[in-house]
Amino acid sequence: MNTYGTLFRLTTFGESHGPGIGGVIDGCPPNIELDQEEIQRELNRRRPGQSKIVTQRKESDCVEFLSGIFEGKTTGTPIAFFIRNHDAKSKDYGHLAHAFRPSHADYTYAVKYGIRDYRGGGRSSARETAARVVAGAIAKQVLRREGIRIWAYVSQVGEIALQKAWHELNPEAVESNEVRCPDAPTAEAMIALIRQVRKEGDTIGGVVSGVIEGVPPGLGEPVFDKLHAELAKAMMSINAVKGFEYGSGFEGAKMRGSQHNDLFYTDETGRIRTRTNYSGGIQGGISNGETIYFRVAFKPVATLMRSQESINEQGEKITIEGKGRHDPCVVPRAVPIVESMAAIVILDFLLRHRAYALD
Amino acid sequence: MNTYGTLFRLTTFGESHGPGIGGVIDGCPPNIELDQEEIQRELNRRRPGQSKIVTQRKESDCVEFLSGIFEGKTTGTPIAFFIRNHDAKSKDYGHLAHAFRPSHADYTYAVKYGIRDYRGGGRSSARETAARVVAGAIAKQVLRREGIRIWAYVSQVGEIALQKAWHELNPEAVESNEVRCPDAPTAEAMIALIRQVRKEGDTIGGVVSGVIEGVPPGLGEPVFDKLHAELAKAMMSINAVKGFEYGSGFEGAKMRGSQHNDLFYTDETGRIRTRTNYSGGIQGGISNGETIYFRVAFKPVATLMRSQESINEQGEKITIEGKGRHDPCVVPRAVPIVESMAAIVILDFLLRHRAYALD
Amino acid sequence: MNTYGTLFRLTTFGESHGPGIGGVIDGCPPNIELDQEEIQRELNRRRPGQSKIVTQRKESDCVEFLSGIFEGKTTGTPIAFFIRNHDAKSKDYGHLAHAFRPSHADYTYAVKYGIRDYRGGGRSSARETAARVVAGAIAKQVLRREGIRIWAYVSQVGEIALQKAWHELNPEAVESNEVRCPDAPTAEAMIALIRQVRKEGDTIGGVVSGVIEGVPPGLGEPVFDKLHAELAKAMMSINAVKGFEYGSGFEGAKMRGSQHNDLFYTDETGRIRTRTNYSGGIQGGISNGETIYFRVAFKPVATLMRSQESINEQGEKITIEGKGRHDPCVVPRAVPIVESMAAIVILDFLLRHRAYALD
Amino acid sequence: MNTYGTLFRLTTFGESHGPGIGGVIDGCPPNIELDQEEIQRELNRRRPGQSKIVTQRKESDCVEFLSGIFEGKTTGTPIAFFIRNHDAKSKDYGHLAHAFRPSHADYTYAVKYGIRDYRGGGRSSARETAARVVAGAIAKQVLRREGIRIWAYVSQVGEIALQKAWHELNPEAVESNEVRCPDAPTAEAMIALIRQVRKEGDTIGGVVSGVIEGVPPGLGEPVFDKLHAELAKAMMSINAVKGFEYGSGFEGAKMRGSQHNDLFYTDETGRIRTRTNYSGGIQGGISNGETIYFRVAFKPVATLMRSQESINEQGEKITIEGKGRHDPCVVPRAVPIVESMAAIVILDFLLRHRAYALD
Repeated sequence: MNTYGTLFRLTTFGESHGPGIGGVIDGCPPNIELDQEEIQRELNRRRPGQSKIVTQRKESDCVEFLSGIFEGKTTGTPIAFFIRNHDAKSKDYGHLAHAFRPSHADYTYAVKYGIRDYRGGGRSSARETAARVVAGAIAKQVLRREGIRIWAYVSQVGEIALQKAWHELNPEAVESNEVRCPDAPTAEAMIALIRQVRKEGDTIGGVVSGVIEGVPPGLGEPVFDKLHAELAKAMMSINAVKGFEYGSGFEGAKMRGSQHNDLFYTDETGRIRTRTNYSGGIQGGISNGETIYFRVAFKPVATLMRSQESINEQGEKITIEGKGRHDPCVVPRAVPIVESMAAIVILDFLLRHRAYALD
Repeated sequence: MNTYGTLFRLTTFGESHGPGIGGVIDGCPPNIELDQEEIQRELNRRRPGQSKIVTQRKESDCVEFLSGIFEGKTTGTPIAFFIRNHDAKSKDYGHLAHAFRPSHADYTYAVKYGIRDYRGGGRSSARETAARVVAGAIAKQVLRREGIRIWAYVSQVGEIALQKAWHELNPEAVESNEVRCPDAPTAEAMIALIRQVRKEGDTIGGVVSGVIEGVPPGLGEPVFDKLHAELAKAMMSINAVKGFEYGSGFEGAKMRGSQHNDLFYTDETGRIRTRTNYSGGIQGGISNGETIYFRVAFKPVATLMRSQESINEQGEKITIEGKGRHDPCVVPRAVPIVESMAAIVILDFLLRHRAYALD
Repeated sequence: MNTYGTLFRLTTFGESHGPGIGGVIDGCPPNIELDQEEIQRELNRRRPGQSKIVTQRKESDCVEFLSGIFEGKTTGTPIAFFIRNHDAKSKDYGHLAHAFRPSHADYTYAVKYGIRDYRGGGRSSARETAARVVAGAIAKQVLRREGIRIWAYVSQVGEIALQKAWHELNPEAVESNEVRCPDAPTAEAMIALIRQVRKEGDTIGGVVSGVIEGVPPGLGEPVFDKLHAELAKAMMSINAVKGFEYGSGFEGAKMRGSQHNDLFYTDETGRIRTRTNYSGGIQGGISNGETIYFRVAFKPVATLMRSQESINEQGEKITIEGKGRHDPCVVPRAVPIVESMAAIVILDFLLRHRAYALD
Repeated sequence: MNTYGTLFRLTTFGESHGPGIGGVIDGCPPNIELDQEEIQRELNRRRPGQSKIVTQRKESDCVEFLSGIFEGKTTGTPIAFFIRNHDAKSKDYGHLAHAFRPSHADYTYAVKYGIRDYRGGGRSSARETAARVVAGAIAKQVLRREGIRIWAYVSQVGEIALQKAWHELNPEAVESNEVRCPDAPTAEAMIALIRQVRKEGDTIGGVVSGVIEGVPPGLGEPVFDKLHAELAKAMMSINAVKGFEYGSGFEGAKMRGSQHNDLFYTDETGRIRTRTNYSGGIQGGISNGETIYFRVAFKPVATLMRSQESINEQGEKITIEGKGRHDPCVVPRAVPIVESMAAIVILDFLLRHRAYALD
């Protein structure tokens, strides 16, 4: 349904062209001073219109907190927030009121509910993820106090793939360009490709890579709520995601055990480490203290600035014209969403883990 | 935790070398005549010792039902079951009582709980999945009545990858060979590779592909419980899984929207269909009536028949010898597990979907 | 936490003196035309200042819907709503910033969270129940379509107890007086008592009785989620409630089985009925088609218009003066809250029950 | 459904005349040495045939642990257990195969599921509570380490009510007589009444009172999961329960605020206390450190040793003869069940509370 998490729990609501998008965060630890400007900055990273390679819908995406914060601190009670829609040009969707756009959720929502808010995809719009970014920004602030740092970056756009691993990259460089790839030459090539694709009225897919550093060993719950299983669900719940892998991922399927096994050793500080990290920081579903890293595949955006064949609610053939304002490539804006979902998952597991530490 | 699902809900318990493995299924629809022999047959597909390319541990894996079935039919009350361990050679593990095996869950369980049943990996053993196969076999029987068919097969072992798509394969051929690849020449090559790897005391990874046919449109819950998000979690919760993708998957990240979009049409029977199926049968997290297909990556088994460097609980360097009975490649036995988890997910969504059909 | 329900699910948020009170309803069946004026009317029944025997805080309690409704109908997506606080006189609470009021939640919230919004009780204020009334009003509209009718009334104020059973009363008479007791002479006595108590700067407890008619047999889930167990939890979660009983209740503890057993018979229409209804419409946790009836005990409001001895956060003795605007007796305003929680519980069970009705 | 709890979670299964009754406990803190004999002793307190005033069914009720315990200690993984049925005289129920016994769950289960295990009530039998006692016995052992003590006693049988409050009683005296009332003269009168009732082939109701001492302040979750709301649900989920009250309970409805308010003071040790305890140890749904006390009303057992009029599945009039072995009064055996459910609730809240104590 529209709630995620066990102890740190986010419920989201809202439609693309309704009054706005919002959420309720339940189970946030109390007494934490929130940096509200930082939350807004995170939201700005996801905001439409932030650069020329994303949708030109103009939304200030200002978050208003409705509860749960007193004198700047969390109180342990639900934190509700709301982001009003301002630039919802519903008229742009009038011609789609009875159409099923290809590879959108128009048809499936219509079948499931027998009714749908067709304006901008209604509830199925990726605009819903704004609420995730607010919750993720709060979770990140809590996690930072625990020494946990989460960052993500664009590692692939179409066929252009970054050839470096996460540990060869500088997290500070992610925001240095509009595509959010921390390697300058690759970023340039990606930007050029996205511009080209947009010019053609087309769209293109990509991959976002995520990194979680500083996770203490012990987080994750056997057997169904393995840390990476929950992470997979969280990522796959983001619009347009088609695949998830962590550690060695699909490449691991090609490897031998003798290559893939991460040998343990005790480092100079007495900490137990592994020499390699094909496990991606997780063994048996539980964090082992090494860095968690993963990759998330996004399909190309379904809305094209071209005519497409489709059908209407009566099943009749129609032509859908390319109108509205859309992203030629979703991954640059997906970076803060991926970080946010990772933060929500990790904080939830941290709370769950602490529960069992009886004297 | 150890429970999966919302309305059709499986709780599993048991350790590799304890009294046995079992589970409780809650929310099974009532009044369904169960074919108990078929359940046992499914369990036999996962059973150790079934062929020469899997572990030689000898377990009959006989399932005993403890509740919830009356005169051969489900009653709607919890179905509990138990599979006794017989061939648990715990002595084989004496030398591992204080060792942390590489890429196993020994270390993470020890850190998380401060205690662990080291015999055969205890709770972290893939033996737990026997309980999933029982629940999956029941779910499959319920789904068959609804016209839904689930099957899986081995599509990759190491570098050897099946080059055909699911619709070019014959599901009946899956059981025709011991590696469970429905393409004879590929199967032969895979078997040869697994034998080679075993001879070297090594192990190898692989990929299982899954297919879900006959799902009506409308299953799946926005926004966090998208059908594919739940499927991802279910698959990633299986031991040794490193990646999940559905529909176009990671390849989709390379594509253009104009290629990737699945155009709608109305077929001769009046049913709404799509011309291609890059969406993998799911749009906006909800089934669209097309076939759902997905791929699950498994890493190579961590237990080798070779000596490996590691550490003990004190963090001291030790050498772990290759002993015990293990699979050189896990994917042939993973096929019924993948099918089972898929069945559990789909049945749960089917029940959830029916709930809202008032009047 | 702050979420109630399994398939029909309410999450509430907000504090007494923050921006407002709100909620998110997830799982409302789609395609239902909502009578929004009726929702506001239900809210008015709970509103402060509605008569002379309740608190004189002036809140219009106007509900604004933020999502989930399209062209007047539910869409199946989350229905979020918000009620702004207007007459929050936080200054009235300045003297209480560091005080623990007797029999309030000031102390327990301070201990639990290490921080609290002291203004008007913050999250622990009964103002939170406004959100429940909105959700309950929606649930009642859905249930009415299914032939289920829920009503409640004040059956006791202090020692004055209504001597008639629910079936001797006219539900239409509940709103005929400000105390919401459908028996005119008893109502008059109750009102006189409340006025007297208020004049003395004191408060008084009472009992609300609830009635659920038209529930089909079969709702309720064994063994922990018995219909009456969930009803008990729902009622006990309302501020100031100290007890719950259904059917014969505590009186049943005095009875013999030969008196208490409800004998079955088949009525003229072929419907299975019971001759008596000590079971209160529920057997084995599942509705049997007879009317469900129950009683909910409310303690006297803790805020007095008198000085009281107490302590502050440092544990020092202080005197708390009687200030602010409070109810001398909470039960008249509790009637719609009791109805609402009952409606939420019944609708949730109705949805859960439908889930299992596979072909 | 058949699972209770959030972090400490019990799933039960089994029928009265099937293979047996069992359960799975998930989320038990690890590394706790369990006294298994004490668990069996608790089970013996609930066991049929333990004295002359309870049912004469002969069950040894020996619990077998199937998982989750290693070398006598909990491992943090699921603890499964099973109690085989031995003296299930299903033939005694042959005459009831098609009958609906008055005030039993026969009819409601038949309607809900369209099938039922009629032998001894199947899943609806109070035999299910044996599993709760096992889980409760474990929870009690964990809680004892935290200084929390839970005890219950019979405070009423029919019209005979104990006139003393919990603090006037000696918990050690509960087991001194077969009715489990810690006041000898009252116990005698109760026993005499139960014998009389049994002689008449009748049954009688009663009340069990519960006491929870040593709960630290801060347990309980606003707003829906108030400590007493969850306690109410837990108690109401026990077979035959009709009412629950805590603290002042239904008597509180008659009181004035000036009487009912529990005034705070700081005791000689600096601990914050209340002078009275009408609140029953809970304020705003959160424990305040005072003793929690409550009362649970049980109806008379529905099975009589007399003929009763009823109907069969076809709705035809039949006469049901009094056969089988049943309790004339359920409350003596209900004492450990009440304690167990209280222990499960408190341990769950303790774990949930600890989760949020970051840093």
